[in-house]
Amino acid sequence: MTDDGDMAPYLAEWRGRFKGKAPAVVRPASTEEVAEVVRICRAAQIPLVPQGGNTSLVGGSIPYEEGREIVLSLSRMNKIRHIDTLDYSMTVDAGVVLKTAQQAAADADRLLPMSLGAEGTCQIGGLISTNAGGMAVLRYGVMRDLVLGLEVVLPDGRIWNGLRSLRKNNTGYDLKHLFIGAEGTLGIVTGAVLKLFPRPRQVETALVAVPSPAAAIELLARLRSASGDAVTAFELMSDVCINFALKHVTGAVNPLSSPTPWCVLVELSAGTRSDSFRESFEEALGAAFEDELATDAVLCESESQAGQLWLLREAIVEAQKFEGGSIKNDVSVAVSRVAEFIERAVAAVEAACPGIRPTIFGHVGDGNIHFNLSQPEGADTAAYLARWDEICDVVNDVILDMDGSISAEHGVGRFKKDEMPKIKSAVEFDLLKRIKAAIDPEGLCNPGKMLP
Amino acid sequence: MTDDGDMAPYLAEWRGRFKGKAPAVVRPASTEEVAEVVRICRAAQIPLVPQGGNTSLVGGSIPYEEGREIVLSLSRMNKIRHIDTLDYSMTVDAGVVLKTAQQAAADADRLLPMSLGAEGTCQIGGLISTNAGGMAVLRYGVMRDLVLGLEVVLPDGRIWNGLRSLRKNNTGYDLKHLFIGAEGTLGIVTGAVLKLFPRPRQVETALVAVPSPAAAIELLARLRSASGDAVTAFELMSDVCINFALKHVTGAVNPLSSPTPWCVLVELSAGTRSDSFRESFEEALGAAFEDELATDAVLCESESQAGQLWLLREAIVEAQKFEGGSIKNDVSVAVSRVAEFIERAVAAVEAACPGIRPTIFGHVGDGNIHFNLSQPEGADTAAYLARWDEICDVVNDVILDMDGSISAEHGVGRFKKDEMPKIKSAVEFDLLKRIKAAIDPEGLCNPGKMLP
Repeated sequence: MTDDGDMAPYLAEWRGRFKGKAPAVVRPASTEEVAEVVRICRAAQIPLVPQGGNTSLVGGSIPYEEGREIVLSLSRMNKIRHIDTLDYSMTVDAGVVLKTAQQAAADADRLLPMSLGAEGTCQIGGLISTNAGGMAVLRYGVMRDLVLGLEVVLPDGRIWNGLRSLRKNNTGYDLKHLFIGAEGTLGIVTGAVLKLFPRPRQVETALVAVPSPAAAIELLARLRSASGDAVTAFELMSDVCINFALKHVTGAVNPLSSPTPWCVLVELSAGTRSDSFRESFEEALGAAFEDELATDAVLCESESQAGQLWLLREAIVEAQKFEGGSIKNDVSVAVSRVAEFIERAVAAVEAACPGIRPTIFGHVGDGNIHFNLSQPEGADTAAYLARWDEICDVVNDVILDMDGSISAEHGVGRFKKDEMPKIKSAVEFDLLKRIKAAIDPEGLCNPGKMLP
Repeated sequence: MTDDGDMAPYLAEWRGRFKGKAPAVVRPASTEEVAEVVRICRAAQIPLVPQGGNTSLVGGSIPYEEGREIVLSLSRMNKIRHIDTLDYSMTVDAGVVLKTAQQAAADADRLLPMSLGAEGTCQIGGLISTNAGGMAVLRYGVMRDLVLGLEVVLPDGRIWNGLRSLRKNNTGYDLKHLFIGAEGTLGIVTGAVLKLFPRPRQVETALVAVPSPAAAIELLARLRSASGDAVTAFELMSDVCINFALKHVTGAVNPLSSPTPWCVLVELSAGTRSDSFRESFEEALGAAFEDELATDAVLCESESQAGQLWLLREAIVEAQKFEGGSIKNDVSVAVSRVAEFIERAVAAVEAACPGIRPTIFGHVGDGNIHFNLSQPEGADTAAYLARWDEICDVVNDVILDMDGSISAEHGVGRFKKDEMPKIKSAVEFDLLKRIKAAIDPEGLCNPGKMLP
């Protein structure tokens, strides 16, 4: 495509933060066609920006304004190549939408555990290239952990066929890990073999009021142990989040009867059905009450009740935009240090901007906090958002002091590339540059993304 | 050390296959000392061979006969730096012996799931550098999956501090995966953060007679699903293996009453104790009988009975040496193709060497088969072993045709390095060489290992 109207959806990110220009958008339908595009572009020294579902939020799949780069969309490569139930694996094209892959696995009585808000749009290749996280990391790991094999078109147009379904293979450096999370800067993922799992047969969901983040983390450690590592979700939410959700999102309901500064949405999954599974969850919650790690809890009686809890959790994301400007941080620390991080970071941003309203939620079972900061009530939104970098730096200083990550699951893209020299040691930054130079010496793969 | 007697244990592998010479063995006691050794050696352009517990069996930690390389032993770096129970992680020196680390985790009521025959000797750094497999991969993954963070002394003597305990961190290429499984060719691992897990509270162990490897794999898929992925071990053994063990190893006992061509040692683990866990195992086995996937089974009544089953499994390794020469293959295929591999490979080696006795066992839940080949009865051992490469090539041809791995868990080292150009595509081999050149441009880290 070269028509501006046709290209428009490929040149902007849906939240509007990142826009770009391109001489063309190409949509190859096979690995060989991707390779041919790469070879042609290389001959003409035209850089390429690979694009999946375009949902990353950090601009990794959007070209720059200069208009030098061609966008290569994987969306026509959308075949599920093979499902192997005995092997608990599936082989898919990069452009398969996550929800389609989940459904195909479920139809074969298997679970593809990757799950996140954008699952109706995001594509497998993008999930791999950004090493996506999401809702099921605590039990099943990040996208990296779900990849058994990869097919990649390299920056020089050669195809690396690493589409093996091997649980063990110790013959040389494990190349697939280079490309996972590389944001398309080392080549273009065109296909993958993914791990599948048995489908859970019993899911118990609860909303638990806790006095503090420290209590939440202690509760998590105990539940992991008491349940035999059956905790599949553990989502912390502050009262500010809950109140925003209740105020702004139709249908959001809080089933807890008394106010609490914090609560956690806890999900436990079992592969078999048994009364004892629910009973042991109840017992563990009872013990948590006795030790003052929890003050109230609602254990769901039905799937629809559990669905309401998840709606509440998702309403938090939606609700923030009704409270003025929101400065967003997607950070992580060691799970045991989540409470310390929240305490230090809240103090730091309140000192920098009195009246700021921290809207704290996230997958704290993975140490991942969405540390979002709504503007002070009545403040000027534009003036507040103008302080984005300054306020993020305040948060990042705490993160870096705690050996954490300033981008836990969304990646770097265009958004945080200039932070990289600041957040990486000189040694680490040098290693990153060496790898880029070794695999993409001409710099034609997604230039200016991830690395400045 | 420079004395020949002192150095001897560092210059040979215990099975006697690989021997070497060195001007010195150095035993630094800290990361800074390792870095200092590397810097001194680099200035003098002396290559280094890092060595852990020296149990790999492929000669990766043994210098060559030319005597140019210095051996750097990590064994004095043996401190457990930190156990974080809330974070389910531990930080250790590279030279910590696996059993010591397991025990320290257990003392903190946590599980370090890595487990293998050499656990009383092998070291964490070696396990990481060879991406060890072992007995618990099916549930907990290989060593790569257990590493959260790494500390590495690079070939130029700089220290890369990647000792973070982050479950999610999407800021640049994930460097730790470069060094895991690199067999010391990209630097020297000096410390690591490892994942821990809740300790299982109930373990059920059974020996199940099955009519064929195909039945075993079908049984595995069903048990994974029926138990909610609680299968923690699934070890296939042929009747030849069992008979060797019973004949040669004192104390080895077969609890099955009738003869069977194949059996599997199955272990299921649960995080909580419940009668229903054992009952559902019994039910699943009952269903397998009905569908003729199993013909007999012994479900253990006690830990000591389970211990006897594991003794039988381990006796197989021991017993082979009493049956003359044994040509060993440590291979893997997709789990669903294990039966096809066994059938094709047995036919191929029998055609090449009539009377050969395949001694087949392994972690087939990971697709990993120890496809060992005892000499024909009464054959000349030396003449048989002289055919090692030829017979391995016969096996490897089947493996490569099936997209498998010729070294599933033991790595490449000196032993299989010359196979690398044969088993890798030109594209993949080129990528491996580029990475080596990017990180160790002077070729001073474990030269001539893994890559020819």
